[in-house]
Amino acid sequence: MTAEFIKPVIWEGDAIRLLNQQKLPGEVEYIFLKTIEDVWDSISELKVRGAPAIGIAAAYGLALWAKKGGSDDLQVLKTELAEKAAYLNSSRPTAVNLSWALQRLLKIADQEVSTEKVITRLEAEAILIQQEDEETCRRIGEYGFSLLPEHATVLTHCNTGAIATSKYGTALGAFYIAKEQGADVSVFATETRPVLQGARLTAWELQQAGVDVTLITDNMAAHVLRTKKIDAILVGADRITANGDTANKIGTYGLAILAKAHGIPFYVAAPLSTIDLNTATGDEIVIEERHADEITHLAGKRIAPEGINVFNPAFDVTPHELISGIITEKGIVSGDYQTGLAELFEPAHI
Amino acid sequence: MTAEFIKPVIWEGDAIRLLNQQKLPGEVEYIFLKTIEDVWDSISELKVRGAPAIGIAAAYGLALWAKKGGSDDLQVLKTELAEKAAYLNSSRPTAVNLSWALQRLLKIADQEVSTEKVITRLEAEAILIQQEDEETCRRIGEYGFSLLPEHATVLTHCNTGAIATSKYGTALGAFYIAKEQGADVSVFATETRPVLQGARLTAWELQQAGVDVTLITDNMAAHVLRTKKIDAILVGADRITANGDTANKIGTYGLAILAKAHGIPFYVAAPLSTIDLNTATGDEIVIEERHADEITHLAGKRIAPEGINVFNPAFDVTPHELISGIITEKGIVSGDYQTGLAELFEPAHI
Repeated sequence: MTAEFIKPVIWEGDAIRLLNQQKLPGEVEYIFLKTIEDVWDSISELKVRGAPAIGIAAAYGLALWAKKGGSDDLQVLKTELAEKAAYLNSSRPTAVNLSWALQRLLKIADQEVSTEKVITRLEAEAILIQQEDEETCRRIGEYGFSLLPEHATVLTHCNTGAIATSKYGTALGAFYIAKEQGADVSVFATETRPVLQGARLTAWELQQAGVDVTLITDNMAAHVLRTKKIDAILVGADRITANGDTANKIGTYGLAILAKAHGIPFYVAAPLSTIDLNTATGDEIVIEERHADEITHLAGKRIAPEGINVFNPAFDVTPHELISGIITEKGIVSGDYQTGLAELFEPAHI
Repeated sequence: MTAEFIKPVIWEGDAIRLLNQQKLPGEVEYIFLKTIEDVWDSISELKVRGAPAIGIAAAYGLALWAKKGGSDDLQVLKTELAEKAAYLNSSRPTAVNLSWALQRLLKIADQEVSTEKVITRLEAEAILIQQEDEETCRRIGEYGFSLLPEHATVLTHCNTGAIATSKYGTALGAFYIAKEQGADVSVFATETRPVLQGARLTAWELQQAGVDVTLITDNMAAHVLRTKKIDAILVGADRITANGDTANKIGTYGLAILAKAHGIPFYVAAPLSTIDLNTATGDEIVIEERHADEITHLAGKRIAPEGINVFNPAFDVTPHELISGIITEKGIVSGDYQTGLAELFEPAHI
């Protein structure tokens, strides 16, 4: 039994076929991006979201431009590529994978001595970035799956799935691997207020893949942990500090406390690129506070009184002692995160 | 400084002035109910909600009918009153206070020997029911307030306020008493998915009363407890069993665990009518599961994929050992709830 994968970014050789995530779950719309401007707009307008998926789309966007509109003069081409990369990078300046992917392509271009070679290598490198991400996610999924008992029931939060990456996703990867291997797995997905990534994206993509998924509101998690024989909680991460403290979507910290109170393991799944050894602990992480409208309005309609005070932190920090294990593409770290996470980056591992 | 109270039900002598809670918070609309049919419709359509407020509205509805349309013949009048009470009781058969208030009026009518006396006594008894509820809520509010430190910051869940009762409310009563006594109090109100009673009603009524209130989504509670110096969590109850286990709006149990993890007291506020000594423990409470639409749709718009599985329990049960105190109109019970709750019902207390 193979899971049906929804791929957010598909390379067509002369265009990018892109899943328009803004229309989900009401409509599954794929759009064709034929110019670099199409790519810029799609990233800026969140038609593609999730750091890895954004990086992949941008890489293809640069390769696409070179193939269609690059100069015949090598030096001119290289200068133009740098300009176009800077342009794409401005579409969403905070996403780390975006600049990382573009820099990687520019470095490749720099090594080549003919325009033809530059164009060919850029396309190949963009494809490689997507393949590598798929492999990273697959490994995270396999390690995640290895932690689950037979017929597992798992609770997850936010969207850490295929549509945020190249394929598989991070935390959701474990469920796709389970599906591929014919293993039973049931998932409770929290809706994830205020932006509803759980209701709109996770519920939809697991449903599409034929994974058994049940949607709940965030405040039902404790009751579910108590009454539904949950084997594990599995979430993603936005930043993991050197000591294992983990910043992730708001609500994650509360779930970690609930997991401990019910004796249920709490796992974080993320690629090495999410681990930030330069930040010592979670106390150093600044929590972004977002606009009140996300809470006071829903689907364009006001659901709270005019002028009400709102506190809208987008993330929270889960202290490492509440985390049973951090699942990466290089293996699972637990216990002494300070040592274990650092070791992932040693040459023997990389 | 006196809090501005929003009263949901106001007796006008020849009509009921009713706050239309269906229009909140977008519009503060008072409607005039001039016939018993108006009262039936308003209860049925949830224009008035909250068990005490429903009971009060129904009592006035019966008194109103007797005043305007009752027979001149005493026996005919008594028969008609029983019929009209049965009619009002059918407007929302599950609300306990509805039948309790109507039975109380019928009993009064039965004792009288003239139609004039019946009509006068019914009106007086309906007013008394409202006054008693106000006194009950005021006492709960005073006991609740007595538990708070100076300049308290309190987190609350769902709506347990003035508009669900005659005045003051239960858990929210503590904040109104604080306001009346010129004490500083700040409140974090969870929006309370799926029906958003916190966002739509609690945020609105505290804002109206001039109480400092900040709205958050339910999954922000843990982060708020960790970062905002919260002094207590204060919630209401739908049913309290003989051992102190408490059924309340979904999400309450999770908040109780979070409170314990942060060393923050967790209080339940409720009138004696909510305490059910005939039910031994929370394990015996059947949790109502409601329609999936409450989760998949918001403000009439679909926010989750078609055909998604949903689990929608309306309540959860908080085990008594997580409760720091139960606040009633007869005082605060803590520790040995089995003994303490039973004592509230002994003659010396009643």
